[in-house]
Amino acid sequence: MLEELKEKVFRANLDLVRHGLVIFTWGNVSAIDRSRGLIVIKPSGVSYETMTADDMVIVDLDGKVVDSRLKPSSDTATHIEIYKAFEGVGGVVHTHSTFATAWAQAGRDIPNIGTTHADYFHDAIPCTESMTREEVEGNYEKETGTVIVRRFANLNPIHTPGVLVKNHGPFAWGKDAADAVHNAVVMEQVAKMASIAFAANPNLTMNPLLVEKHFNRKHGKNAYYGQ
Amino acid sequence: MLEELKEKVFRANLDLVRHGLVIFTWGNVSAIDRSRGLIVIKPSGVSYETMTADDMVIVDLDGKVVDSRLKPSSDTATHIEIYKAFEGVGGVVHTHSTFATAWAQAGRDIPNIGTTHADYFHDAIPCTESMTREEVEGNYEKETGTVIVRRFANLNPIHTPGVLVKNHGPFAWGKDAADAVHNAVVMEQVAKMASIAFAANPNLTMNPLLVEKHFNRKHGKNAYYGQ
Amino acid sequence: MLEELKEKVFRANLDLVRHGLVIFTWGNVSAIDRSRGLIVIKPSGVSYETMTADDMVIVDLDGKVVDSRLKPSSDTATHIEIYKAFEGVGGVVHTHSTFATAWAQAGRDIPNIGTTHADYFHDAIPCTESMTREEVEGNYEKETGTVIVRRFANLNPIHTPGVLVKNHGPFAWGKDAADAVHNAVVMEQVAKMASIAFAANPNLTMNPLLVEKHFNRKHGKNAYYGQ
Amino acid sequence: MLEELKEKVFRANLDLVRHGLVIFTWGNVSAIDRSRGLIVIKPSGVSYETMTADDMVIVDLDGKVVDSRLKPSSDTATHIEIYKAFEGVGGVVHTHSTFATAWAQAGRDIPNIGTTHADYFHDAIPCTESMTREEVEGNYEKETGTVIVRRFANLNPIHTPGVLVKNHGPFAWGKDAADAVHNAVVMEQVAKMASIAFAANPNLTMNPLLVEKHFNRKHGKNAYYGQ
Repeated sequence: MLEELKEKVFRANLDLVRHGLVIFTWGNVSAIDRSRGLIVIKPSGVSYETMTADDMVIVDLDGKVVDSRLKPSSDTATHIEIYKAFEGVGGVVHTHSTFATAWAQAGRDIPNIGTTHADYFHDAIPCTESMTREEVEGNYEKETGTVIVRRFANLNPIHTPGVLVKNHGPFAWGKDAADAVHNAVVMEQVAKMASIAFAANPNLTMNPLLVEKHFNRKHGKNAYYGQ
Repeated sequence: MLEELKEKVFRANLDLVRHGLVIFTWGNVSAIDRSRGLIVIKPSGVSYETMTADDMVIVDLDGKVVDSRLKPSSDTATHIEIYKAFEGVGGVVHTHSTFATAWAQAGRDIPNIGTTHADYFHDAIPCTESMTREEVEGNYEKETGTVIVRRFANLNPIHTPGVLVKNHGPFAWGKDAADAVHNAVVMEQVAKMASIAFAANPNLTMNPLLVEKHFNRKHGKNAYYGQ
Repeated sequence: MLEELKEKVFRANLDLVRHGLVIFTWGNVSAIDRSRGLIVIKPSGVSYETMTADDMVIVDLDGKVVDSRLKPSSDTATHIEIYKAFEGVGGVVHTHSTFATAWAQAGRDIPNIGTTHADYFHDAIPCTESMTREEVEGNYEKETGTVIVRRFANLNPIHTPGVLVKNHGPFAWGKDAADAVHNAVVMEQVAKMASIAFAANPNLTMNPLLVEKHFNRKHGKNAYYGQ
Repeated sequence: MLEELKEKVFRANLDLVRHGLVIFTWGNVSAIDRSRGLIVIKPSGVSYETMTADDMVIVDLDGKVVDSRLKPSSDTATHIEIYKAFEGVGGVVHTHSTFATAWAQAGRDIPNIGTTHADYFHDAIPCTESMTREEVEGNYEKETGTVIVRRFANLNPIHTPGVLVKNHGPFAWGKDAADAVHNAVVMEQVAKMASIAFAANPNLTMNPLLVEKHFNRKHGKNAYYGQ
């Protein structure tokens, strides 16, 4: 069942490798079929070299495995929290990509300092708070999702489709699996450019007019960019 | 029509990918046929994997599409301003290449600190001023060109064939599409070397004699380098 | 003799190249057959392009060559000290990989600042003390091993399977040759991310709860991650 | 004539590309036949894609072209000065490789801070003084060689086979063309590691005992490393 979605999630997982976002098995992509309430996600600990579309695991919104031989990614519970809280999200990606992970380790939001960022993320890509003892020692992967959702209390997750989990790494999302991977690639790139830009000028400033212009010409009502 | 120029512009766009200057569709190259007053430019939002020479779009100097099925790059109006203001420019490139874009985000000119720079760019690669509300909310892509041209009020655009648009990214140009791409590659490389050099010595200095020597042995009346 | 182990050590040496950890012949992997007290290690000064499994050299725990035409890696005596002191180690790797070597040159432990680190190394990856005149001018390669072992006086080498030799470079180890290479790749990656993270925030802090959680979910009694 | 040497110089030039030290035509390798007093060097401005062994240019020690159709590299006069002053040098390389060039732009010697450096370069890789007006406006490429040779007044060029020309870039040399390329690759790598190491610890120190040990175990009377 869900063969087409499995194929898309499989290809999206391979795209993580192709774009240089993962080494070994450090990454996972999922997508949701909202009409059935089912999520397709990468299996746990399977190497990218041998993985097939059929290895993708189906889980329901309680995390229960449906019709699959393999165990789902350990991060499944985090993906589920994101799908539950953020309507309109069709795909989720987690990686340990180099620069985005380093910013997560630094515990800093990636500020919006250029049109590359503004084309995809309206605001700074936020970094979560530190997780509490209850969260870490409790249902850790689910609570990782809770911490992400809490961070978006005053943010629009569709306008800023990504987050840094403090001392951990990035999650990104999009309208489907491919779009989520696309946003994960952009997040890595804006993290890299931010590192270089702040080294060149620690006191740099952004023109806020460009944020509105670039975000809206691509995502606004009268979008005309890259259509 | 303009089949040969379309082929050259197509190949120049692929060269951006080959040199690692673009990811996804973040870049565009154009060339002008000054005798006919027509520009050939990459189409908007078409993937590099499927693009053909025939997809290149012809526009006139008012930006009106001539004999083409596809929409021209959203940045077409910026290219046109550069062609109108800078005589002798035959090709224009825009990218979000990593280091040059980061310097644009930093809002800093890339200073001429070595012979690699001086071989191609006589002066610092200038960064534009911030755009005003009128410019951003008006005819934005055209005004991006205006801001570039204004920045060259006291600079020779043939001697310094590139610019950083503040908080946005680099534009480069040359005598044709291939030359513009060449200059875009050099700009990315000098931006990268400047980042590393200033980290190694924030108080570094350039020998101004080398600027004149290197620029002139390659571009001067009695040029003898790389001929 | 030991044909299967030779094949594994040979493949692990090639993996160093594939993962970008070595240029020229700057790296070596070994594995031990503890039941026979024999070590298989890369030969000295043989190029990766022409090397075969049969070129791997067998030595005993005194460093004496057994049944081999070629000379063992110059670093063999260091490998032997690690095998002697650290029970449960089945493979050892030495490289001059870029970021880990730079941290060794900096003379700094790589602090545990993220879950990527905590998934593989419980503590900071330690940097050794400077070697003394007696150690450098004596049996240098053996003493390099002594200095490593001394650094682990209060550390568990199975929980933190790697070290930086000051002003020299990294050694990593694991349950076999492939596992040691895996840990060497991770060490290079965490060194790189630490460089970027500290540049982004020199005062960053780690959540100590995440160290225990991530290390234990992968290596603890009830491990459930990546199994 | 000199067909074998032409082939070696040709291959060494291609190796610059393979090791990522040059983009476009920014690099050149030469070798000398000291018995005949003839140098073989890359031609000027020929692309690496189309170049053949037969395109290599032969010049004598006055820089006069012997039996060749093409013009020699513009840097030929610099190579000649190095051959004249440094006995035992059989091959010379010039590149604009990223990190070494950035250190040249920074105007800083690359200090010997690790065994990777000490394995190949006994001392810091020196940076030349700024060139004077007479030198730049005179026989510039020859004077570039003069400045290099002057910098080695108190240094052994065989023990430290490379230099940074201030605000320009690196030259390296060796016993033949391949060895010179090898040293150019190492110089780029030690420049990169030095950048990362000083960012990790601006006050790092080198253990001087390691310099003598590593240099001598590889190049000394009783060398036993990598033989």
